[in-house]
Amino acid sequence: MSDRIAPDLPVTDAEAAAEVIGAEDTVLVSGFGGVGYPKATLPAFAAQDEDAALTVVSGGGVGREVDDVLIEADKLARRYPFQTQEASREAINSREVAFHDRHISRVGDEVRLGEFGDPDVAIIEAVSVGEDWLVPSTSIGHTPSFVAAADQLIVEINHAQPDELERVHDVFQRDLPPGRDPIPVTGATERVADARVDFDPEKLVAVVETEQADDPYEFRDPNEVDLTIADNLGDFLENEIERNPMLAESVYLQFGVGSLGNALMGELSGIDFGNRDVVYFGEVFQDGLLDALDSGLLSGASATSLALSAEGQERLFDGIDRYAEDVVLRPADVSNNAALIERFGVVGVNSAVDVDLYGNANATHIGGTDVVSGIGGGGDFNRNCRLGIIALPSTAAGGGISRIVPQVPHVDHTEHDHSVIVTEHGVADLRGLSPDERMDALIEVADPAFREDLRAYRDRATAKAGHVPFDAGTAFDWQETGGD
Amino acid sequence: MSDRIAPDLPVTDAEAAAEVIGAEDTVLVSGFGGVGYPKATLPAFAAQDEDAALTVVSGGGVGREVDDVLIEADKLARRYPFQTQEASREAINSREVAFHDRHISRVGDEVRLGEFGDPDVAIIEAVSVGEDWLVPSTSIGHTPSFVAAADQLIVEINHAQPDELERVHDVFQRDLPPGRDPIPVTGATERVADARVDFDPEKLVAVVETEQADDPYEFRDPNEVDLTIADNLGDFLENEIERNPMLAESVYLQFGVGSLGNALMGELSGIDFGNRDVVYFGEVFQDGLLDALDSGLLSGASATSLALSAEGQERLFDGIDRYAEDVVLRPADVSNNAALIERFGVVGVNSAVDVDLYGNANATHIGGTDVVSGIGGGGDFNRNCRLGIIALPSTAAGGGISRIVPQVPHVDHTEHDHSVIVTEHGVADLRGLSPDERMDALIEVADPAFREDLRAYRDRATAKAGHVPFDAGTAFDWQETGGD
Repeated sequence: MSDRIAPDLPVTDAEAAAEVIGAEDTVLVSGFGGVGYPKATLPAFAAQDEDAALTVVSGGGVGREVDDVLIEADKLARRYPFQTQEASREAINSREVAFHDRHISRVGDEVRLGEFGDPDVAIIEAVSVGEDWLVPSTSIGHTPSFVAAADQLIVEINHAQPDELERVHDVFQRDLPPGRDPIPVTGATERVADARVDFDPEKLVAVVETEQADDPYEFRDPNEVDLTIADNLGDFLENEIERNPMLAESVYLQFGVGSLGNALMGELSGIDFGNRDVVYFGEVFQDGLLDALDSGLLSGASATSLALSAEGQERLFDGIDRYAEDVVLRPADVSNNAALIERFGVVGVNSAVDVDLYGNANATHIGGTDVVSGIGGGGDFNRNCRLGIIALPSTAAGGGISRIVPQVPHVDHTEHDHSVIVTEHGVADLRGLSPDERMDALIEVADPAFREDLRAYRDRATAKAGHVPFDAGTAFDWQETGGD
Repeated sequence: MSDRIAPDLPVTDAEAAAEVIGAEDTVLVSGFGGVGYPKATLPAFAAQDEDAALTVVSGGGVGREVDDVLIEADKLARRYPFQTQEASREAINSREVAFHDRHISRVGDEVRLGEFGDPDVAIIEAVSVGEDWLVPSTSIGHTPSFVAAADQLIVEINHAQPDELERVHDVFQRDLPPGRDPIPVTGATERVADARVDFDPEKLVAVVETEQADDPYEFRDPNEVDLTIADNLGDFLENEIERNPMLAESVYLQFGVGSLGNALMGELSGIDFGNRDVVYFGEVFQDGLLDALDSGLLSGASATSLALSAEGQERLFDGIDRYAEDVVLRPADVSNNAALIERFGVVGVNSAVDVDLYGNANATHIGGTDVVSGIGGGGDFNRNCRLGIIALPSTAAGGGISRIVPQVPHVDHTEHDHSVIVTEHGVADLRGLSPDERMDALIEVADPAFREDLRAYRDRATAKAGHVPFDAGTAFDWQETGGD
């Protein structure tokens, strides 16, 4: 028996644990940002002979030992609210698996309130477990809510995850509305709780030991476009901090998950923040932040997931004595909480598939039809921060498709939510602009090859009456071409 | 000198106060829900001979003494973020006045952070004023933020507004991010401050006395469709409170501004809430709530505006001893605050112009082009409450136009935000449904005369590949017909 597991707990193997799961159960799994997800129980369940049609809810992105194994075994019927694996993407886009993406900050509550059915089993990866508590591994996500909501609990103790993770976690557990307290966190790295997720000991039906590393997302290296976007963002921020009273003494930053977000984090050192205190308050801690912490540019970081590459994880754990003070992982309903994002005046930088001339952003569905991952926490930050920035390359497909379009076919972030759009061609500061003025500003940050067509749409639309210039007959012309 | 005005303040007439306003100033005005707006200074400014091009920001809807007089004098260039007068609607829809609508909860912060330019003058209606404080009249809106942001302050003391309003107000004033505290309010009617808005005495340049009643919105009487929607909503809520743990002991309700919202408030008595404590936590207090308070069904109400009819105002003020305990007015960044809406588990019921088969709602622009009023607080509640309901009649134009459409031309509330759509034909409970399942559920609450056409769109869309069934070529067919 490991010293990570308290005596007298129901330690068993994955096959026995998998027996707990019913064929049509709703299963809640730990994991966020591609790390901290359970790795043994669902592969064992998938290997069973019986037919099954599970509903699986995760807090954020998880690995192939959840999505792929269930899809390959034809045992996944419904999936919420975010996924990042090729297998799940294909199954969802072919409508073999039902999916709906919800704002991450709310998923814990929604699970507890029955939005996704009646939760049967929670499967949680942890680094240690006691009679009525566990310490999460490389992500916290919605583990506290999932453990509270499910009838039964399976804990996977992963010996490949370092014990020191408990020095990073701050697990503030919330009661359900309406009796819940305000979240007492007053700064990015303030700790208000301990590392443990409490649970009702009667729920614990199995403890499974594993020793398998996370299979985190891989981010490509920054390219020329990423770096130009970072430059433009940096120029904008350097001007903005001089005039915006919210940013006079400190700057709370958030970057969305992904290669561009990672690249922007990595280029932070190119921005002159003067003598301001710069902190990160986001949902994922990516490799790009390690340099900024090491150089002292960033004084601290709050997130719900250590979404690091294998190399980044090694670097963090090797330096855990240094990092544990300045890096805090929180439950996703705290890391992404509207109240904290608003109180801290977070400057949020999130990406999109495309942005339209009205300022709306589509962050989830290519061509309006094919889901990439889900809305994730983008809407939590973009909607609640006091300076919302959408950063994206102006084109896709090697320049063949404009990502500034007349009208996005699917809206995730409305024109009312954010303030600024950044591409490699510049910054469209939309603050205070009326719809026709927004169109002009957005055409200027489109790829020059598409500006003439965008101006033609603008002209057709502005020739019609109304506050919002809109030409229904041609608004989706680019989608039609792409989609047929 | 009135005893509502402290000695030695710069009392003057409206004409002299209007001299303070520069020709291209940004002017911030009190008012919300059509009440509590300044009534003398801007008419005097409009009557001056000089040319002007003002920017005007209000917290919510105001009366003709702001919008109409400036537009008639051709002195309004820009207007944010919500308006309700026919004159402003026409000027905005003809693009004579630039307009952009923002989420109300955020407008106070955005004004202070320069989102709408550099604020010059705040004109605030109050019932009393001291050397460095004022007590707002029938609405609070963003008065605290506006007073903090503007260089100069004009106070209009309206003797037609009862002094007792100070017994209703609870003005919690917030610092700017990132140093602001959590809002300490733990229940709908808890008071945490006093009735006064503080200001820097050096800003006060004029005090003007008026004696003119508000010109509040007029709501039509409930019709058969409103009452059927109320019935359907009531049936849904009676079932929901039995199963949803958030609603086991108390129910926090919010209804959107407007005739339908007012009708739904008025029909609350038809819902059996068992022995639950029912409270209102919204942005406007409308006539419909008075009966519910009188009958004891509602134990209290929090809002930022007494958007009552003249008759309703009289009823409230005649019974102020009884109502002052159970009705609280707060600043709009508190009444609409994401943190409170989430902590209380508000059940939000908001309306829309149309809803599409994807579950997106357009709440602001008819045909995607012509603004009605602005997004107001609908997004604050719909996005942050834990059970978001959109209620709307299934048709407009006497049945000639379906308000359930293939795709809305303008998105204010995304499919990720709310959970349930209610029409007079039933309830579409979208929780956990994938896009194709949502289409089926939404067709069932459309008017029967349009279901065949909606099914035809669904069939064309689902014949194409992808998670979201989408037919770009025909998604806007109904808009094209209407818009040309």
